[in-house]
Formats: sequence, C-alpha cells, structure tokens
Amino acid sequence: MGPGPSDVSPRVLNAMCRSTLGHLDPLFVELMDETKALLQYAFRTENALTMPVSAPGSAGMEACFVNLVEPGDKVIVCINGVFGNRMVENVIRCGGEAIKIEDDWGNQSDLNKVEDALKAHPDAKILAFVHAETSTGVRNDAETLCRLAQQYDCLTIVDAVTSLGGIDVNVDGWGIDAIYSGSQKCLSCVPGLSPVSFSDRAVSVIQNRKTPVQSWFLDMNLIVGYWGQGGKRAYHHTAPVNSIYAMHESLVMLKEEGLENAWARHQSGHKKLVAGLEKLGLSMAVDEAYRLPQLNSVVIPDGVDDAEVRSRLLNEFNLEIGAGLGALAGKVWRIGLMGYACKDRNIDHCVASLEKVIR
Amino acid sequence: MGPGPSDVSPRVLNAMCRSTLGHLDPLFVELMDETKALLQYAFRTENALTMPVSAPGSAGMEACFVNLVEPGDKVIVCINGVFGNRMVENVIRCGGEAIKIEDDWGNQSDLNKVEDALKAHPDAKILAFVHAETSTGVRNDAETLCRLAQQYDCLTIVDAVTSLGGIDVNVDGWGIDAIYSGSQKCLSCVPGLSPVSFSDRAVSVIQNRKTPVQSWFLDMNLIVGYWGQGGKRAYHHTAPVNSIYAMHESLVMLKEEGLENAWARHQSGHKKLVAGLEKLGLSMAVDEAYRLPQLNSVVIPDGVDDAEVRSRLLNEFNLEIGAGLGALAGKVWRIGLMGYACKDRNIDHCVASLEKVIR
Repeated sequence: MGPGPSDVSPRVLNAMCRSTLGHLDPLFVELMDETKALLQYAFRTENALTMPVSAPGSAGMEACFVNLVEPGDKVIVCINGVFGNRMVENVIRCGGEAIKIEDDWGNQSDLNKVEDALKAHPDAKILAFVHAETSTGVRNDAETLCRLAQQYDCLTIVDAVTSLGGIDVNVDGWGIDAIYSGSQKCLSCVPGLSPVSFSDRAVSVIQNRKTPVQSWFLDMNLIVGYWGQGGKRAYHHTAPVNSIYAMHESLVMLKEEGLENAWARHQSGHKKLVAGLEKLGLSMAVDEAYRLPQLNSVVIPDGVDDAEVRSRLLNEFNLEIGAGLGALAGKVWRIGLMGYACKDRNIDHCVASLEKVIR
Repeated sequence: MGPGPSDVSPRVLNAMCRSTLGHLDPLFVELMDETKALLQYAFRTENALTMPVSAPGSAGMEACFVNLVEPGDKVIVCINGVFGNRMVENVIRCGGEAIKIEDDWGNQSDLNKVEDALKAHPDAKILAFVHAETSTGVRNDAETLCRLAQQYDCLTIVDAVTSLGGIDVNVDGWGIDAIYSGSQKCLSCVPGLSPVSFSDRAVSVIQNRKTPVQSWFLDMNLIVGYWGQGGKRAYHHTAPVNSIYAMHESLVMLKEEGLENAWARHQSGHKKLVAGLEKLGLSMAVDEAYRLPQLNSVVIPDGVDDAEVRSRLLNEFNLEIGAGLGALAGKVWRIGLMGYACKDRNIDHCVASLEKVIR
C-alpha cells in the first residue's frame, strides 16, 4: 500500500510467466493489437498511436518530451510536486525553455496562474502538467487545463502515471495531445512499461520536426513501424514480451470490471480508509475537493516517529506505506489504494496495523 | 531458435512471477546487490557501476552513448552489420561526429582500417564496435580492438548483446570502458533488461561532462543513486522488479553452470548444428575463424523460398528461425543457439525439421 508498485493480481503474474514468444511472432503481434485496443479503452481514446513504451513511466515521460520538444521550444510546466519538476528536467535536456508555474506541494496548480502564463507566452508550444501527483496525492484539474491549452493554441503533455484506471482519464474528451502512464499503479501490472498515447495533431508535429528526435530508442517515428496498426511489423527493438503478456491481462481485468466501476471502487475504498484513519485521530493532508482516492497523504502527528512507524509496519505487519517526498518528507505518509490493492481487507489491515503502531 | 529472444528456462519464468516487492523494499535491495555481483561475474569485471538498465538492449546502447558522448565528440564506429549502423545513429543524435569504418556484412571489422582511423583522428574520444553481430553471426576481435583503442587513448563502447554468456566477454581483461548486453540472448532471461558496466575511467568522464546527459531516464549520474553500492537507495525510477527477479535467476543459473562451461556448451552445440546442416548440403555464411557459435548464418540454397521455409518451420514444426537482415535479407537464415535453447534436442529438431522442409 505504498505509492506503487501496487500489488499484482495472481492472474497477471500467471499470464506473465507463459513461454516467451518471438517479438515478431504472428501470435504475439495479435496480442500487441489487442493490447493497443485495450489501452485505447483505458485512455478513452481512438488515437492510432497508443501503445506501451518498453520501459518504466520515467521513460514514457521522456518519450513525450523528446518527441514533441525541439531546441528553443517554450514549454509551460505546472509544478506542485516531484513529477512537475521532473518534467522541467526533461524540457531542459531537450534544449527547450521551461516556463515554471509553481504552487505549494499539496495544493492544486492554480488555473489563473496558468492562464496568465499562457497569455504572457503566446509563443509557448506546450502546456505540461501532472494529472495525479503521486508525491502529494493531489489531483490537478486536467479537463480545465486542457481547455486552457487549446484556447491558447498549445499542445498538452499529461502525466497520468497514477491516475489511469483509478480516476477518469478522458484523452479524447479533454483533447489531450500526449499522455503517459505507468503499468504499476492503478493498472496493477508489474512495473516496467509505460502506456502512452499521442493525438493525430501530436503525431503530425512529430513527423514534421526540424531536428531528429534525440533518443533513438524513444523515437516515435521509428517505433510506429513496430507498433503500427496492421501490415508488416518492422523490427525496432526487442519488446519486453512477457511484461506485455502481463499488461494485456491487467487491461483485460480492467475491461471486465469496467472503467466506471474501477473508479467507483477506488472512491469507496478511499472513503473507507479516510473514515478509519479519522477514527484513529489522523487527518488527511490534501483538501477533499482535489484529493486522489488512490494516493492518500496522511499528516504524521506530532511526536510520532515517521521512519519507525513505516519500519514497524513493514517488519511486524508485512505492510508497506510510503514516505513523504521533497517538501513533504517527514510530514506525511503516502498510503496507496491502487488497482488490485484497493480492497476492503487491505484497508482493514492498514487501519488496524497503524492503530497498533502509533498508539 | 531465432536471433532472440531465446527460450526462457522454467526456473526463470517461475522466479519472475513471485509477488512484486516495492522497488525500495530492503529485501529487493538485497536482490539488487546480488544481481550486481552476478553481473560482475558474467562480465568478468570489478566495475562498481555494473547493473541492468530498466529497458531493452537498444536502451543499454543509448545509455552508453548519451553518457559518454558530448556534442562535437568524435567517435570511431566499426560497421559490419545492423548494430554498427545503430551505433552511428546514436552518435549523431548525441551531437557527436561519427567516423565510420565499414566492412562487408559477414566479414570482421578490419583491424588495419581501424588503426588507420585511430591514427588519422588523434582527437577521437571513443572507439565503438559490436562484439557479436546478431545480424550476421560475426565475432569481431574485441580484445585487439580494445588494445588498439587504449594505444591511441580512446575509450571503448562495446555491444555485447549477443556475446555475453555465449562466448568470452572479459571486461577487465580487455579494458573495456562501457559495455551493454541484453537479457534475452545467451542469458536466456525474458527480454526487457540491458546489463551494462562502466569502468572507473568512464565514470570519471561521465562525472566531468560539460553538458548534462540528454536523457534523464538514462543519466548514470542519477541512476547510480539507486543502484549504487551500499547505503541508502534514492528513488530514481521504479525498477522493473519482476524482470529483475528473472535476471537474477538466469544469472544464478549461469554461475551454477560456470562461464567456461557455458561457452563450451555453446561451442559444442554449434559444432553439432553445423555438422547436421552440412549433411543436408547447407553451408555456413561466415568464416569458421570468426563465426559465432550462438548465431549461425546459413546460406539459403538457390531455388529455396526463404519466407516459405521459415513459415513452414513455424507452423508445422513450432520452430522459429530468423530471416537475414539488411544486406543479407533473403540470402541467409539466422539460427540461434542461445543459452537455455542451446541443447541437443533443439538442434536435432532443427536439423530434422529443416530436412523435411527443404527437400
């Protein structure tokens, strides 16, 4: 019950350990097509360029930035946690210029400040933000941020690592241009893959770049030859075949449950957890209006030893919860309720164990 | 029995599907330390910076180039197959200048031409070459190439994707500065990880760069905080935990067998395969003096339909062999004898099936 990787269902683990097929085997290519279609369902998109990057979410982030940012491009980045800062790092390493919109960790990105920045920088090419800040438990207002970006003719890059499968992520409905997620959060798949999706507008920007994409491994102009719809697949790199078996199974499970039901399960698990924590006298660090159900930042009470509590939970109760990061280090615990791990027995165990450890 | 991914042992598949631990869990950190030590054994090195990159071999290649090449740097690249060309792509995308030494596909890189280039470009920073060219089945003379590089004060970047575990790879003995391999060839692990190792000299070059590494995900200055020896591990990205279970198990198997015994097994499997193929009237495309035992390029006889043979082997005999690539497309088949797949029953089945299909 940390900030991820989340618990992986036995179904997913079993799928993963099937024999390794060749990455160009016709049976595997069929599975790739199904995986793409399932990801389109999860992302709520018809984007043709929707597939898992063969590496963790950090590489999915990099895939979005290196493909869309060219040297000199201006990118407005919303920062209210660790991952906004990591976006800035990506912009800089692409030779772009990052316009930083900073808000306190634990608060939402301020829409007025974002609009001011869009007005002040009419030449900005991209607005980038984190939908679900894993470092704080804050949900940013993705729908409004996307609408603002469109109003000021900006592309959007959205971090959905922790949101996908836990709360609504509506790629086509909100008009997102580039989005990345992670396998190991609310999809409850093994860590190591990063689902991404690019709008046709983003694809056209990538195809018409003036400079080559600085990463060969993440160059979407090449990857599309392997993951592209139908026809012959050209070798680009060797896909992580077994991890894709796992992702396929985790997406089949999501579809069986239904997206809306998955969101509802995360929401009701969250309510149950909060009720249990409040009974222990603990309080939540993030305002209810923009609190993520899947990542719960809990204020560490005065006089309680952060590291000791986490260590006792792990060693005596076989339960992992996360430490605070950056500005919130030592101030909060982060309790994940992600995917397969978001269930009553875990919540009961978490509350009961915390009670024994902090009293 | 294609050019990889190779068959994965049930032991490795079983290890992989154990429950996913957190990437900072003390038990997982122990497993990381063991994995590093086992990789040092496989690479024959004491390099402290030895670990698996969390992505396929192509990303391991990119990790070596983006960390060592800065804009304007000259890199001499030996090209005698697909992967030499991919190295050139990497140099260019790092802003470096590639000096290309080209030899025919199926031949070794010519040592005299390499030495001439080293003489002609005294300011070259790096010599890069592929040890085992998966696209042709040629072994380049890594030991001599490394000695030449040292003589002319160049760093070396070596592609050992297909060599590691199949033939001798002696990182410390040959003085290699940066090397990358793949999980899915002679280690017979699932695809998706790329073991790398950097000499202390290379690490010092990386630490003293004038410009930041263009990839955040592959920046060794940051990754070392997570994979570094001892002490507290800092989060960089979420490691592909289950894939590392798999790699650990495959390396335990390699150590149990012993490196020398693994090389000998590949060599004797190769001899058995060649004897069987020659009985069918087939001939090898690569000179015996520098032929890889683990990747066998077989000349397609006149009048035999390349694609039909491969398709019938796959559909009627459940056997995958590889097509030729680039200059060798349609001219050779590539038969892999890698790791767990290099065993008598596979070789017998391959020769017997080919006999039925080509006669």
